[in-house]
Amino acid sequence: MTNRMRLGQPTAPSAQELLERCRRMVQPALRDTVDRLPPGVRHMAAFAFGWSDADGVVRSEGMGKGLRPALTMLSAEAVGGSAEDAVAGAVAVELVHAFSLIHDDIMDGDERRRHQETLWKAFGVGPAMLAGDALLSLAFATVSGTAAAEAAEMLSTALIELVDGQADDIAFEDRPWTGADAVTVDDYTRMAANKTGSLLACSAGLGALFGGGSPTATAAFATAGSRLGGGFQAIDDLLGIWGDPAVTGKPVFNDLRRRKKTLPVVFALGVDDAAHAPALVRLLDAEPDASDADLTVRRAADLIEQVGGRSFTEDQAEGQLSQALEVVDDVAVNRRAAAELTALARFIADRSH
Amino acid sequence: MTNRMRLGQPTAPSAQELLERCRRMVQPALRDTVDRLPPGVRHMAAFAFGWSDADGVVRSEGMGKGLRPALTMLSAEAVGGSAEDAVAGAVAVELVHAFSLIHDDIMDGDERRRHQETLWKAFGVGPAMLAGDALLSLAFATVSGTAAAEAAEMLSTALIELVDGQADDIAFEDRPWTGADAVTVDDYTRMAANKTGSLLACSAGLGALFGGGSPTATAAFATAGSRLGGGFQAIDDLLGIWGDPAVTGKPVFNDLRRRKKTLPVVFALGVDDAAHAPALVRLLDAEPDASDADLTVRRAADLIEQVGGRSFTEDQAEGQLSQALEVVDDVAVNRRAAAELTALARFIADRSH
Repeated sequence: MTNRMRLGQPTAPSAQELLERCRRMVQPALRDTVDRLPPGVRHMAAFAFGWSDADGVVRSEGMGKGLRPALTMLSAEAVGGSAEDAVAGAVAVELVHAFSLIHDDIMDGDERRRHQETLWKAFGVGPAMLAGDALLSLAFATVSGTAAAEAAEMLSTALIELVDGQADDIAFEDRPWTGADAVTVDDYTRMAANKTGSLLACSAGLGALFGGGSPTATAAFATAGSRLGGGFQAIDDLLGIWGDPAVTGKPVFNDLRRRKKTLPVVFALGVDDAAHAPALVRLLDAEPDASDADLTVRRAADLIEQVGGRSFTEDQAEGQLSQALEVVDDVAVNRRAAAELTALARFIADRSH
Repeated sequence: MTNRMRLGQPTAPSAQELLERCRRMVQPALRDTVDRLPPGVRHMAAFAFGWSDADGVVRSEGMGKGLRPALTMLSAEAVGGSAEDAVAGAVAVELVHAFSLIHDDIMDGDERRRHQETLWKAFGVGPAMLAGDALLSLAFATVSGTAAAEAAEMLSTALIELVDGQADDIAFEDRPWTGADAVTVDDYTRMAANKTGSLLACSAGLGALFGGGSPTATAAFATAGSRLGGGFQAIDDLLGIWGDPAVTGKPVFNDLRRRKKTLPVVFALGVDDAAHAPALVRLLDAEPDASDADLTVRRAADLIEQVGGRSFTEDQAEGQLSQALEVVDDVAVNRRAAAELTALARFIADRSH
């Protein structure tokens, strides 16, 4: 524990400092946990966490923001516990997050993530599936020490919701852009609450549980995490269309090129005055390899923005975020940790601008 | 609990009766557990367990022998506990087994299992991956009630070994038939102990744990389960080449057609007098779609048998099985349950004849 954490401080640390502080506490435990894997699977895990390249050469301090473990640590502090007590929970959610990215990349056929090849691209689909399975199993082993029954139950519930959300997301691909079977904003919101909200709910809930929070406080933090997840998914959807490729590591308008039914699109196709809908569907359905594909997706993005898809999604992000922070503010007994959670959430949200 | 279980009996029940008795105890709990899944994933799980067809129409009492849950129930009784106490463990191992079959079928590209389409073939790769992930998560939730820490640890260890074994099995595909990098009998044995032995070790170990066995008895039952797994894998390897398609549901000589490096093949290629090896490699590498493919695989099978690959594998199966049953015999306090475990193991082994 750093002096800053023990003593409190006059000025709040920046979100980057918060993430860095949590990372310093979680990474050694995460590495120790991953080291328990057999060599072949451990090698793939090290690649997925950005610790080494495909040949096993050490390459960096790792990657990813470490948002979920930070949420766990700060939630433990917010209910009056210590961050140390929640390290096992933080490791578990980071392992589950890594598992879900690995399996998602296989299902989505994504070849790059965080400026490097995805695991399946580097090692093959079968080995990558297995590495994901191993990280999932390791996550349960991690929480099996303390508060085992509730923690395992929480983790399992989150995983089943996550899987359900991902299954819905896949099923959305086969649904039409418009008409009675089209994906509605409500369908989308429920899917996102499962796909993204469940693991963030688990991250905050496990933190409160390991921090010694009451069942009421633990449930409240889980709710806050779920809302944060809804907000972050909305932000990801904005980035998937209007994000800067230098930041996202993905092509501009990527989600439109991939015909993803994300919130801005679903909203744009569902607005009452749908005179623009046929034009938008034509743009979305255009041949992705055509010479004017770049222009087509840009026109689709502009049309979505004109009919309010971008601002609606921004409002959703902001609304869910505010709800999350209100819950934290109501329940937290450690004001410093509550303020830090707020700073962290705002920092993530600001990625969209 | 049936009268027979409560009262003991003069004549031992047949292995089929044992399996049926365990199935009657485990299936209701398994169905209750699977019913906790969200509809889409539950639907796929019901298909994977053989409870309904792809359209959701109820089709049977389910399928699969239920060997692993039976091993759990009988192990609980063998250490002096009751089978009821081990139902949660039996459900967990059956869920993990289903998960592993679903993911294996994706990785191996197998389109049929147990005389029906595999899950990925019926529902798509992404949804099937997710259904497997959900069943794995559910398994951990199932054991989170009683003896949670040890049970979760045991389940997690088994899963990581299982994944490691499966990863090795995949890696074997890229290794040459002969030479310094060829798969040896030792390599193969270690892989099989992980791929097949780990879950059977967990099945027996969880049974002993939930049955109230001492740590020593629990470890001994885990060892017995591991040996059983080694034996059963050897038997599967025999069936993969010489098994009756009407029994296996797969084409005759299937593993040779798929160029699997199973124990009879690995042994045959590794015997000292390897004059036959080039001929065998030529047969194994022959074009699988050639008009004489049936003859080629038959000649490969005959050659493997001539140089002792079949009898070596039969001896391995028998040796591992005997070791397993000796351990059970040493440790069991309930002689009736020990005799039933023996009957069950012998029944499975006899599938090869």
